[in-house]
Amino acid sequence: MKKIGFASINITDGFWKKKQDMVKNTTSYAVYNRFKETHRFDALKCVPSKEYEPHIFWDSDIAKWLEGVSYILRKNDAPELKKLACEAISDIIENCDESGYFNSYFLVKDKDKRFKNRDNHELYCLGHLIEASIAYLDATGDERFFKAMCKYAKYVKKVFKDEKSADFITPGHPELELALVKLYEKSGDKDFLELAKYFIDEHGKNHCNERKTFESNGFTALFNQDEMLLKDREKISGHSVRALYLFSGACDIARLYDDKELKDSCKRIFDNIINKRMYITGGVGSTRYGEAFTVDYNLPNRSAYNETCAAIALVYFASRMQEIDLNSKYADCIERVIYNGFLSGISLDGKSFFYENPLEIDLYLNDVHRATNHNDYFPITQRKEVFDCSCCPPNIVRFIPSIADYMYTYDDDKFYVHQYISSETQHEGMSITQKTNYPADSKIELAFNIQGKKLALRIPCWCKKFEINRKYTMKNGYAIIDEPCDSVAIDLKMSVVPVRANPRVHENAGRVAITRGPVVYCAEGIDNGNDIKSVSIDINAEFDIRDSEFLLPTLHTTAKKPISTEALYTEADDSFEKIPLTLIPYYAFANRGESDMCIWLLESK
Amino acid sequence: MKKIGFASINITDGFWKKKQDMVKNTTSYAVYNRFKETHRFDALKCVPSKEYEPHIFWDSDIAKWLEGVSYILRKNDAPELKKLACEAISDIIENCDESGYFNSYFLVKDKDKRFKNRDNHELYCLGHLIEASIAYLDATGDERFFKAMCKYAKYVKKVFKDEKSADFITPGHPELELALVKLYEKSGDKDFLELAKYFIDEHGKNHCNERKTFESNGFTALFNQDEMLLKDREKISGHSVRALYLFSGACDIARLYDDKELKDSCKRIFDNIINKRMYITGGVGSTRYGEAFTVDYNLPNRSAYNETCAAIALVYFASRMQEIDLNSKYADCIERVIYNGFLSGISLDGKSFFYENPLEIDLYLNDVHRATNHNDYFPITQRKEVFDCSCCPPNIVRFIPSIADYMYTYDDDKFYVHQYISSETQHEGMSITQKTNYPADSKIELAFNIQGKKLALRIPCWCKKFEINRKYTMKNGYAIIDEPCDSVAIDLKMSVVPVRANPRVHENAGRVAITRGPVVYCAEGIDNGNDIKSVSIDINAEFDIRDSEFLLPTLHTTAKKPISTEALYTEADDSFEKIPLTLIPYYAFANRGESDMCIWLLESK
Repeated sequence: MKKIGFASINITDGFWKKKQDMVKNTTSYAVYNRFKETHRFDALKCVPSKEYEPHIFWDSDIAKWLEGVSYILRKNDAPELKKLACEAISDIIENCDESGYFNSYFLVKDKDKRFKNRDNHELYCLGHLIEASIAYLDATGDERFFKAMCKYAKYVKKVFKDEKSADFITPGHPELELALVKLYEKSGDKDFLELAKYFIDEHGKNHCNERKTFESNGFTALFNQDEMLLKDREKISGHSVRALYLFSGACDIARLYDDKELKDSCKRIFDNIINKRMYITGGVGSTRYGEAFTVDYNLPNRSAYNETCAAIALVYFASRMQEIDLNSKYADCIERVIYNGFLSGISLDGKSFFYENPLEIDLYLNDVHRATNHNDYFPITQRKEVFDCSCCPPNIVRFIPSIADYMYTYDDDKFYVHQYISSETQHEGMSITQKTNYPADSKIELAFNIQGKKLALRIPCWCKKFEINRKYTMKNGYAIIDEPCDSVAIDLKMSVVPVRANPRVHENAGRVAITRGPVVYCAEGIDNGNDIKSVSIDINAEFDIRDSEFLLPTLHTTAKKPISTEALYTEADDSFEKIPLTLIPYYAFANRGESDMCIWLLESK
Repeated sequence: MKKIGFASINITDGFWKKKQDMVKNTTSYAVYNRFKETHRFDALKCVPSKEYEPHIFWDSDIAKWLEGVSYILRKNDAPELKKLACEAISDIIENCDESGYFNSYFLVKDKDKRFKNRDNHELYCLGHLIEASIAYLDATGDERFFKAMCKYAKYVKKVFKDEKSADFITPGHPELELALVKLYEKSGDKDFLELAKYFIDEHGKNHCNERKTFESNGFTALFNQDEMLLKDREKISGHSVRALYLFSGACDIARLYDDKELKDSCKRIFDNIINKRMYITGGVGSTRYGEAFTVDYNLPNRSAYNETCAAIALVYFASRMQEIDLNSKYADCIERVIYNGFLSGISLDGKSFFYENPLEIDLYLNDVHRATNHNDYFPITQRKEVFDCSCCPPNIVRFIPSIADYMYTYDDDKFYVHQYISSETQHEGMSITQKTNYPADSKIELAFNIQGKKLALRIPCWCKKFEINRKYTMKNGYAIIDEPCDSVAIDLKMSVVPVRANPRVHENAGRVAITRGPVVYCAEGIDNGNDIKSVSIDINAEFDIRDSEFLLPTLHTTAKKPISTEALYTEADDSFEKIPLTLIPYYAFANRGESDMCIWLLESK
């Protein structure tokens, strides 16, 4: 199974065209400016400064921004962005030392600490720099950054694999594994693939607890993805972003080495996520403690961590699974993430960001914290322009311009359409055009010339009724068009569907989430007043569907609210008040001021 | 309004007779033995030991046990308990220093720290020692302990009020205030009353933040009951036990000085508790952070703190309010506490204890904590025999033997019956007998000779229908018997009542608590299987009421449970499975092994 990269695909109009324009015109500059102000770009010059203190992971922030800008440059003439990227890249290249090493922190501060501490993010930064250098080469043809990173990667191979002279064995924050596979695929140099495989194989030998030469930071082997060999893992656990970047790399290795044990482990892990540990928004990582997965069915709404980076990492994992296992569940997962738990990470104006993406906001709880003066916290209620740990904003800058990466794969017989996005594609003699206003609208028209392959259209898991104007056969969640043709029209009938969580998710017992197509809806206080958690809706309620400022429609119905009372406890009766209820796409919450928010609404009696 | 103390009342049979026998025969010894093993009694000898480290609040544990044992001795011949009490009291008396001071920690360790740190609990320990000394005097006629504590209290007056030579102004853990009022009422010495008033008046002048000579422990003025004058307080806040002991003392001062401002404040605070900050069990203190009250309507079930001592302290406050304000809400509150959130603090065998009394146990959450390795916690799921901070067990030892304290008050015209407990009472020429199996049964027979006063019977807030075989007039929640008589029969008709919380209590939205009379019921996993939070009941369901091992009946009905499914998210439909549901009195939960538990059950559609 081969994948068609975003470079071959032009998103022409519709939902994602608007989001790509926003990133190109606004977000890329907004993130640049915040990083400039916070001296992240200055730090690349590797000169000690009294003005600021560099940070061990700043290079990864820059790298993700560079990767994103390169993706924009691949598709657009953007000389100002190119100039800004060029400057940063020149600083990086100039300051690599003779070994190839680069890290704007350890070249200036703690110079004797190079490769001493597994948690110091040096290999994580390298991974992102590698990805950026490949993207920049692809966008500009300029090889210098790419070659510098190849040299650095060779040095890492020497230190970690040949000499084993570092104070730790595997990356504390996985990412390099998947980057090395990309580097191999770009350069053809098997050293990089073998180094990636080495890291994947070593993960789980409990190195992080055995070696005492570096600080443990109190993190456990579980947190560190180091409690058992990846091929033996049954469940996803520990730090969510680390886990998902690591399994993305593992998936690549399983594919390239055709490693059945590792493939099976990846399948088990993926199923564990989507069947037991994923929010309805596609968000993952139930707790801020260790930014981690917890246990099956533990999906608290208000304190959901759901880091934006984890949503992105889940797409990376799912898209790699799509290449080794033919099942629509991977594309279903990607669709769930991109329209919900990922996209909530960025404001409608493209300038501010959520690091955590909770499923509920209850403003009065802020008062609980003030009243008790304790240090625990719930996620912030408004997006911010930059964070001290600002991994998520530049991750969005690279994700949206490359979102077409997840649309198509093909093999000798079939051409798979995983995502429905209005676009034009030319790839190795094949072409395919989609015309659609999906997911605001349910109809998609496809025209194609795919060299005699059969077209396979994903029927989303949420879609119970659809029409295709050709004969088809269902297989693995895909409708395979049986008759020879060069166009197809498909209508993925959308209705408003109330969804229940598994009864083991106790937090959502007696509640439903309202969805339309792949889009999860929420109720905000600004539309619906206080106490949304006490408002109930009938699962058979009729909804009025209205165009909105959010690119996707809003939903309107009548709901029930308990009669308000002064008493704290009263005998239950059947009286209720009727109120109008407005639901907006979840991804658009918190764009109109601070407000309560709730996805899981009470089912009325 | 005068109160009839428990000394005049003999509980003859029924629910509380059994509980009093349990404390006399089992709990008093169980607590003694745990305190002996942990060297709390040894510490009274005030000799440095290598075997153990004394603690600043151990004297208060001993004092509450002594007070409880004295209450038992008042009513029973218990020579073994008397001997044990005598030994402890002798140690205390012998080791008071020449000033009168006694504290088994500061007489041995940190001798130079006397009265240096507001948080050091010395005045709190004194308060409990005073209460114990009064109880012992009343039980035995032996004045030595009482006189020693009078001397110590005089010394405290000199240091804190006359010389102001201590490093702080008011008790960091209030309790002494109410004890000094008791000491005044026993001794007639106004010095003690004035010292109590002085402390009450000084609370809220923000002393705890101004004085820098002692450690603050990070506690705020809010926590410390020191952010504003008590007469200006609108809401209950901060550490729940401290707040309620303090307002109990404030209530005494308001009564004795006929201080309208302070009375009004006490009324506002009490109403704030029962209308916005009290669990349906009568438990208070929503958070472990600072063991504190939080904000209105914040009543989380699983993490409810609800310290057993706070339940007791709420009864102390309510019973004092009963003496200054004629309204059945005070006795209603006491009844709610004693059958639910207080009594859950002790096991059915009388040997083990809860410090925290949550309204829900979800065992799988323990795995979340193990998975994330973080230090936060939910309440323990099984009672323990002793705690490091073991304030609650001896508080139960003094509370149950004196529970008749809350039954009766009288004025010139009326004789108020606040609690229905099978008993015989003789007091200053009056007599009253109750025959009842309340609250297992709803009927109470009263026979009385109350010197021409009118009998006033509390009609509980939960009781919508009752029968009295005499003519009566309702006033302030009491049925005042209008016809001259010497006996009354009342039937407080009990049905099974589903209760809703105020819609602002978001946690309980869509849920009901099942009650019968004053008793709150819960569902345990041991009877009902997993996922109780997903089980729903009809508010019009019929219940089968069966006698049980818990002294009160269990309730049985049919409930609905969602069809179990593998999928994490599914389209909502109307299918359900019917299951039998068993409810037991909340107070009896966690007596049959570790189990899920839930009070607030989902309302079925």
